[in-house]
Amino acid sequence: MPEDFITLTFPDGATKKYHKNITGFEVAESISKGLARNAISITLDSDILDLDAPITRSGEIQINTWDSEDGQYTFWHSSAHLLAEAVQELYPEAKFGIGPPIENGFYYDIDFGEESFGQEQLEAVEKKMIELARQKSNFKKRNVSKDEALKFYEERNNEYKVDLIKELEEGTITFYEQGNFTDLCRGPHLPDTSSIKAVKLTKLAGAYWRGDVNRKQLTRIYGISFPKQKLLDEYLKQLEEARKRDHKKLGKELGIYMMDSMVGPGLPLWLPNGTVLRRTLEHFLREEQKHRGYQEVITPHIANIELYKTSGHYPYYKDSQFNPMEVDDDHYMLKPMNCPHHHRIYSNELRSYRDLPVRLAEFGSVYRYEQSGELNGLSRVRGFTQDDAHIYCTHDQLKDEIKNVIDLTQFVFKTFGMPVDIRLSYRDDNDEKYGGDYEYWERAQKEIKEAADEMNLNYKIVDGEASFYGPKIDFIIRDAIGRKWQLGTVQVDYVMPERFDLTYIGSDNNKHRPVIIHRAPFGSMERFVSILIEHFAGDFPLWLAPLQVKVLPISEDYNAYAKHCADKLTALGTRVEVDSRSEMIGGKIRDAETAKIPYMLIVGERELENGTVSIRRHKSGDIGTFSLEEFLSKVDEEIKNKHLPPSHLEEE
Amino acid sequence: MPEDFITLTFPDGATKKYHKNITGFEVAESISKGLARNAISITLDSDILDLDAPITRSGEIQINTWDSEDGQYTFWHSSAHLLAEAVQELYPEAKFGIGPPIENGFYYDIDFGEESFGQEQLEAVEKKMIELARQKSNFKKRNVSKDEALKFYEERNNEYKVDLIKELEEGTITFYEQGNFTDLCRGPHLPDTSSIKAVKLTKLAGAYWRGDVNRKQLTRIYGISFPKQKLLDEYLKQLEEARKRDHKKLGKELGIYMMDSMVGPGLPLWLPNGTVLRRTLEHFLREEQKHRGYQEVITPHIANIELYKTSGHYPYYKDSQFNPMEVDDDHYMLKPMNCPHHHRIYSNELRSYRDLPVRLAEFGSVYRYEQSGELNGLSRVRGFTQDDAHIYCTHDQLKDEIKNVIDLTQFVFKTFGMPVDIRLSYRDDNDEKYGGDYEYWERAQKEIKEAADEMNLNYKIVDGEASFYGPKIDFIIRDAIGRKWQLGTVQVDYVMPERFDLTYIGSDNNKHRPVIIHRAPFGSMERFVSILIEHFAGDFPLWLAPLQVKVLPISEDYNAYAKHCADKLTALGTRVEVDSRSEMIGGKIRDAETAKIPYMLIVGERELENGTVSIRRHKSGDIGTFSLEEFLSKVDEEIKNKHLPPSHLEEE
Repeated sequence: MPEDFITLTFPDGATKKYHKNITGFEVAESISKGLARNAISITLDSDILDLDAPITRSGEIQINTWDSEDGQYTFWHSSAHLLAEAVQELYPEAKFGIGPPIENGFYYDIDFGEESFGQEQLEAVEKKMIELARQKSNFKKRNVSKDEALKFYEERNNEYKVDLIKELEEGTITFYEQGNFTDLCRGPHLPDTSSIKAVKLTKLAGAYWRGDVNRKQLTRIYGISFPKQKLLDEYLKQLEEARKRDHKKLGKELGIYMMDSMVGPGLPLWLPNGTVLRRTLEHFLREEQKHRGYQEVITPHIANIELYKTSGHYPYYKDSQFNPMEVDDDHYMLKPMNCPHHHRIYSNELRSYRDLPVRLAEFGSVYRYEQSGELNGLSRVRGFTQDDAHIYCTHDQLKDEIKNVIDLTQFVFKTFGMPVDIRLSYRDDNDEKYGGDYEYWERAQKEIKEAADEMNLNYKIVDGEASFYGPKIDFIIRDAIGRKWQLGTVQVDYVMPERFDLTYIGSDNNKHRPVIIHRAPFGSMERFVSILIEHFAGDFPLWLAPLQVKVLPISEDYNAYAKHCADKLTALGTRVEVDSRSEMIGGKIRDAETAKIPYMLIVGERELENGTVSIRRHKSGDIGTFSLEEFLSKVDEEIKNKHLPPSHLEEE
Repeated sequence: MPEDFITLTFPDGATKKYHKNITGFEVAESISKGLARNAISITLDSDILDLDAPITRSGEIQINTWDSEDGQYTFWHSSAHLLAEAVQELYPEAKFGIGPPIENGFYYDIDFGEESFGQEQLEAVEKKMIELARQKSNFKKRNVSKDEALKFYEERNNEYKVDLIKELEEGTITFYEQGNFTDLCRGPHLPDTSSIKAVKLTKLAGAYWRGDVNRKQLTRIYGISFPKQKLLDEYLKQLEEARKRDHKKLGKELGIYMMDSMVGPGLPLWLPNGTVLRRTLEHFLREEQKHRGYQEVITPHIANIELYKTSGHYPYYKDSQFNPMEVDDDHYMLKPMNCPHHHRIYSNELRSYRDLPVRLAEFGSVYRYEQSGELNGLSRVRGFTQDDAHIYCTHDQLKDEIKNVIDLTQFVFKTFGMPVDIRLSYRDDNDEKYGGDYEYWERAQKEIKEAADEMNLNYKIVDGEASFYGPKIDFIIRDAIGRKWQLGTVQVDYVMPERFDLTYIGSDNNKHRPVIIHRAPFGSMERFVSILIEHFAGDFPLWLAPLQVKVLPISEDYNAYAKHCADKLTALGTRVEVDSRSEMIGGKIRDAETAKIPYMLIVGERELENGTVSIRRHKSGDIGTFSLEEFLSKVDEEIKNKHLPPSHLEEE
């Protein structure tokens, strides 16, 4: 190829030849005007670049728009600069520290000197940002020498930037300017400020310079911005909705779990309602697994540390494990994972190819050390229960087994009304952490992809995201308010069969190594329940609700009939209670609504006479009067078919 | 009362006045000739006395016959002397160490000097024992001075007895003589040797003098004896039967559990069949508890050590606990019991008298340290799961709650065909270990007894067997071969409510202390399963059997029909497999019998044509041909009603 041409490969695999030094904008334009209009930056291999930067080499290119993570990263990075520009207009003496994009938005650490800056001042800054954005100032990049850079900030008495520049190497320093604001920055940035259409400064916090408590505390302003007002409105609505659904708040109100300082942080205690919920989930998965040929086992919560040395989990993951304890002359450890125990069960008997696949499942409680500052409700804990399983199969069975676990995982999330995105995580050939035979890796990655293709899945391949022992499939679910959570995982493992010397006797009468699939659809019961609470906002499907029906007699005269109705429901296996307090019916309904009980049966004179029940559905209100038999079969049908709650369906 | 009269209180509560210095034999005679004939010794309060010893004080008396533990203790103690007498006759140079009665029989540690003594010599000793027993030698007690005692044994060069005598106090030393044998002994003993009618010397072992490895190793001869040959025959049959039923042997053969050196001793891994068994037991108890108003909870397997300091379990039970591990700046421990966790759940919310009783249940895995030498299969382990529950109730609710737990426990054991003996364990007023308010103790002991009386239970009251925090009820079950096992326990607790400051708001709007009942019918799932395996000899009731039905097609032509039958059974919830191997039907039957599968369905041409199945029941053989529908309803009925297996019923 002549030196002045480059080849760019697009995400769909197509390649195109371009003149060297073409800009990202021009590439976008060569595809469509619309794309060029929406383009924010480009990603070349893994580098994000300005849209007007000349492209000097061949590679994989992605045109970043708002809809991509890299696009949002660029957008929010530029918004941080815009925030600083606005602050500089309003507070000319303010000195700027660092201002990066983050997962949801951006922040800037600012030294306001003697000026006081509080919550009340945020709105003025927001307004100024929008005003400045409308000026459509270009983000202009320029290379500066270290001396020039130092001089610029010394003149402005900004010791923070001086501090940063001192650590940079000559020749790598760039400034970005927009309007009257200049910042030390590597970029990339938006072409200009005009696409920042909506801004919300969300939070103020104190932040020590460089995280050092001995240095000055700056004011950190958090914000988020969008290319459309509508997107900001949606975001704020989602935030508000997330606050209402917070599983720590609902978990307490609904009696799901408690934390106890005497027991210790990160160690949830499941309360009666939470235990019903968890047992119901376990039962659901256990039955499904039984049909699919899994065998359940139970293994201890500790083991001799030698077991984890064999698996390689110790000492490599030492920092995320609890300290060993001395027992006799050995050291034992809380189990951080169930795999090594299952491998020992596999090798407890001689296995023939006729016995494979062996599918060992366990609801196994494991313990991992997390910094106390990282702990968060049920979603980040120190002790949790995995819905774990290990499938030991021949290489020839691998693809079918992968399909089986994909199918199970999809079935599970469909039951909860959670759409799933799929990511195939491959090895990065340049990274040395990956173990096992290269040939097997290639084969496994191919089979994973073939399985996904044959099942007509939409997926994304990500290099370098595999686990150290093999490629994996990650399931990323979207909850009712659009947030994404990585849950289920399916991992192919060629390393542990070697480490544990696992074998089976093939039809050739020789010993062979099985391959292992690790999988856990929920991942952790604790984390999954935290997501489930927020997904349903505590308004669980009938089959999952800890208390399914509450019978509310209008007065004490109807307690006996209420009990009769409850007994019929109990006989059906329904979780039911009678509210026989001498409260007014309005109060009883209110309490049942607060407790988010799916069905309230109101019974009084008319119901007693006719053998009926008046039904109220949580969040839907009255749904009419039914004969008791009708209601029984309605409940039975709804539970058996695991209907989603009506409130959930409406929101979709 | 004049000084020369005493009052004796009999087990049924009756009292009788006697002349002082009356003997136990005379007291027995005053009741009946038969009792006097069978009397072995007496127990006065907690002292066991010779039948011819004068009774010098009033007290509670029990005439011990062979049927009582104290009677057997006396019988076997005398048998140890008889063993020594026989050895002395045959080996005049033998020197005797100690020879106590034990749980099943007795032993004697003997120094045979230069003589070799092995298994082959045991029979001659047995014969000699019977020969000497027939001489009807009286056991004669005499007081000796320390000098006389030392002289006696020094003359005989017996350094062992000299060693023992040196530690005794002047005035407390007694000798017992029978025939030509004299022994240093406190007694008591049988009137004479003639009631020892059958003897079996069961085992030889080495035993260091005083358990000190630096001292001489003596020969320990174990034996057991009976007042009738028939009793010995039964005992030997039971031993043989127990060997066949050994849960370690069957546990391996039936795939119930495994032990693994890499995981660690005393930490069982439940294999697929064992897991089905355990989950079925858990389901059975969980459903029963649900009906009885229990609420299930799940708590972590570790906690900050402060929790156990509050409960008092640490450091007092330190030796039976795993070592603490450092976490951040605290110490955490594997939980040795679930109680403290449940108490924290109780106090997590404000409780009103209207909420009580609160019944919190958990299948809670706990970890306790045992010496590795003490570990034994599933029956003595380091990690086990309790079917634990704690009932928090008012003092007024206590008796009813005790009745509820007794009823539940009896229901549970009845389901397994296990007769139950009940022991009420009271405090010993002279022992200072007992905590809590004396008045409450008295009341609780009274209520336990009233509950037992109102339920028409047969029970035995034992002083000094209470737990430190309150009186308890112990359930001792008898298995299919007559062995006794202490299982379920119900404990009343006044101490923990204080230690954890547990309260409820009474109808008077004041705070009150609840009382706690601790209870666990199975005790430990591991130990209960070990007993269950031995009780049923692995031939489990249909509802418990890991695999319930195996369908055996006569040839491959009938695999499809076999699968059809299996599918019908699966739809019913039955655990079923098809043996579709190309084996002969005889081999398939043999394998299914070995695996102790309750039902084998044999299907061939005739069955296919008629839509029938030929049924074989494990241990009972062919039971005829049924239509598939008939068999389905038979199985359904047998599972629902939890029938005992036919083999078990025959043996009863």
